[in-house]
Amino acid sequence: MSQSVKARIVSVGHYLPEDKLTNADLEKLVETNDEWIRTRTGISERRILKDPTKATAFMATEAAKEALESANVDPSTVDCIIVATVTPDYMFPATACLVQKRLGCTSAYAFDILAACSGFIYALTTASMFIESGRYKRILVIGADKMSSIIDYSDRATCIIFGDGAGAVLLDGTSDGTGVQDFIQRVDGDENELLCMRGGGSLNPSTHATVEANMHYIYQDGKTVFKKATEAMADISLEIMEKNNLSADDVAWLVPHQANQRIIDATARRMGLGSEKVMSNIAFYGNTTAATIPLCLYDWKDKLQKGDNLILSAFGGGFTAGAVFLKW
Amino acid sequence: MSQSVKARIVSVGHYLPEDKLTNADLEKLVETNDEWIRTRTGISERRILKDPTKATAFMATEAAKEALESANVDPSTVDCIIVATVTPDYMFPATACLVQKRLGCTSAYAFDILAACSGFIYALTTASMFIESGRYKRILVIGADKMSSIIDYSDRATCIIFGDGAGAVLLDGTSDGTGVQDFIQRVDGDENELLCMRGGGSLNPSTHATVEANMHYIYQDGKTVFKKATEAMADISLEIMEKNNLSADDVAWLVPHQANQRIIDATARRMGLGSEKVMSNIAFYGNTTAATIPLCLYDWKDKLQKGDNLILSAFGGGFTAGAVFLKW
Repeated sequence: MSQSVKARIVSVGHYLPEDKLTNADLEKLVETNDEWIRTRTGISERRILKDPTKATAFMATEAAKEALESANVDPSTVDCIIVATVTPDYMFPATACLVQKRLGCTSAYAFDILAACSGFIYALTTASMFIESGRYKRILVIGADKMSSIIDYSDRATCIIFGDGAGAVLLDGTSDGTGVQDFIQRVDGDENELLCMRGGGSLNPSTHATVEANMHYIYQDGKTVFKKATEAMADISLEIMEKNNLSADDVAWLVPHQANQRIIDATARRMGLGSEKVMSNIAFYGNTTAATIPLCLYDWKDKLQKGDNLILSAFGGGFTAGAVFLKW
Repeated sequence: MSQSVKARIVSVGHYLPEDKLTNADLEKLVETNDEWIRTRTGISERRILKDPTKATAFMATEAAKEALESANVDPSTVDCIIVATVTPDYMFPATACLVQKRLGCTSAYAFDILAACSGFIYALTTASMFIESGRYKRILVIGADKMSSIIDYSDRATCIIFGDGAGAVLLDGTSDGTGVQDFIQRVDGDENELLCMRGGGSLNPSTHATVEANMHYIYQDGKTVFKKATEAMADISLEIMEKNNLSADDVAWLVPHQANQRIIDATARRMGLGSEKVMSNIAFYGNTTAATIPLCLYDWKDKLQKGDNLILSAFGGGFTAGAVFLKW
């Protein structure tokens, strides 16, 4: 790398709907119980955006607004807005365009990235390279998903896992040695049907038949995905450490995608990290897909110190995987 | 810009379905006629991917395969695959992940960009900045849309315009002064409902009611979008010339998004370019959304000479707009 400018996170914002869906609530919907859910996933409750007139763009806007206000940055000075999501308000216009308008980011261009649970990582590295190229200086990266819009609440394999939420980071360039140092991103496209939304795209356009067959809901072969995720997230997290000669002592925080507490624990174990270095809020929010990592950064932001070495790590549908070494 | 590495297009590939939908065919479906369609849009026929088992990923893969083969590049050496589309096979996994697998690009990560008709431009600039950053060296950028999957063939305002297709470019880095020199990208999020797919996203999830109301089809207020597009595409194309001190004589080719021949003509007029410098194949393919610009590059590739100054320009849903100054 010849250039010295790297992308740093200037500020973080979040949005979580007020309504909670608890394990006790789910016991009334499907055959499950609190004890089973907690021991298998680590999840106690999730947030649900119940207002049918509001969706991903609303949450993304609120999260980004908080990030801009916390950095005291004029919205019109933002160059670009990237929204990572699998639940855009529309297929077009892009959710990022709705956010651009609502924030008053009149100078920003905007687009969405589809990369499932690795979406935030892929959007963050995208924005980082934009800043490193020297072309753009100030970028909003938002992970936001209204997962409740694609959940079948009679499918106990998925309805216990996912929640709604949004997290946003404001990036700019720095030459002080902090910021995004390195990343590894990879795709294993082998078994796509294991984690998929089968209907509503160009392969199975929406019809009465696709609606009848529940094809517009998330489908997950939980066991196989769990096994793949556990391996892949641990592998890529260890690999980014080794590539950058980081020992467990060097790492201040693991910021893992929140898909399952057992996957998070296995990743930390492989990295040699104690639980005191692992961000986890899955108990309260479940898996918010593209929002999990920025929501962790938000919840832990007051504990982070300049120079802390963070490993961000994700695995998701695709299968996509990514790990970022970020110096706070 | 301090770095000297820029992204150049190494090769181009394309895919067009064999089946044609002519103006005569459309006369049988809706109240319209060949003369009206040709004078208002410049379109005579479009290609339609009729096989219901094939969608955007299939076309994207074929186009990318041709680009790789034409450059004689081993698929496993590709670092990243970006698919611009508004008609992904699924919301997840990303269409780019399906393409990664089918091409055997085992070292590539992959994601989709949603940015409507500006999708290819936004994906091209994204890949360019990735290469300029020094992080990645070889990237496939694909624009692909199976527009027939979201067209209501009883709506004469839209069914006459759109077609199916895919175009792909393989990018790598160069220091010889050619490649992507500059770009302008902007969003005007003001009037999103004028060009929109209202159903199937998180705001209006697929239900029998959304299917009944045809909300999973493209909606366009043709007159207003035409007016906006004509202004915005001409503005941004002129602006990228002025920003780079390019006279009309300096520009070898305009590579415009193919939405309407009259928009293309108005843009060329504002740039001071004669029609001999304007790529247009809308007569044969209609508006293939993210595929129009690479399909033009494919059709004209044998006429392009090293060092030619190209202006790529697009406008679309969002509203998104983009212009790229590319030295061939």
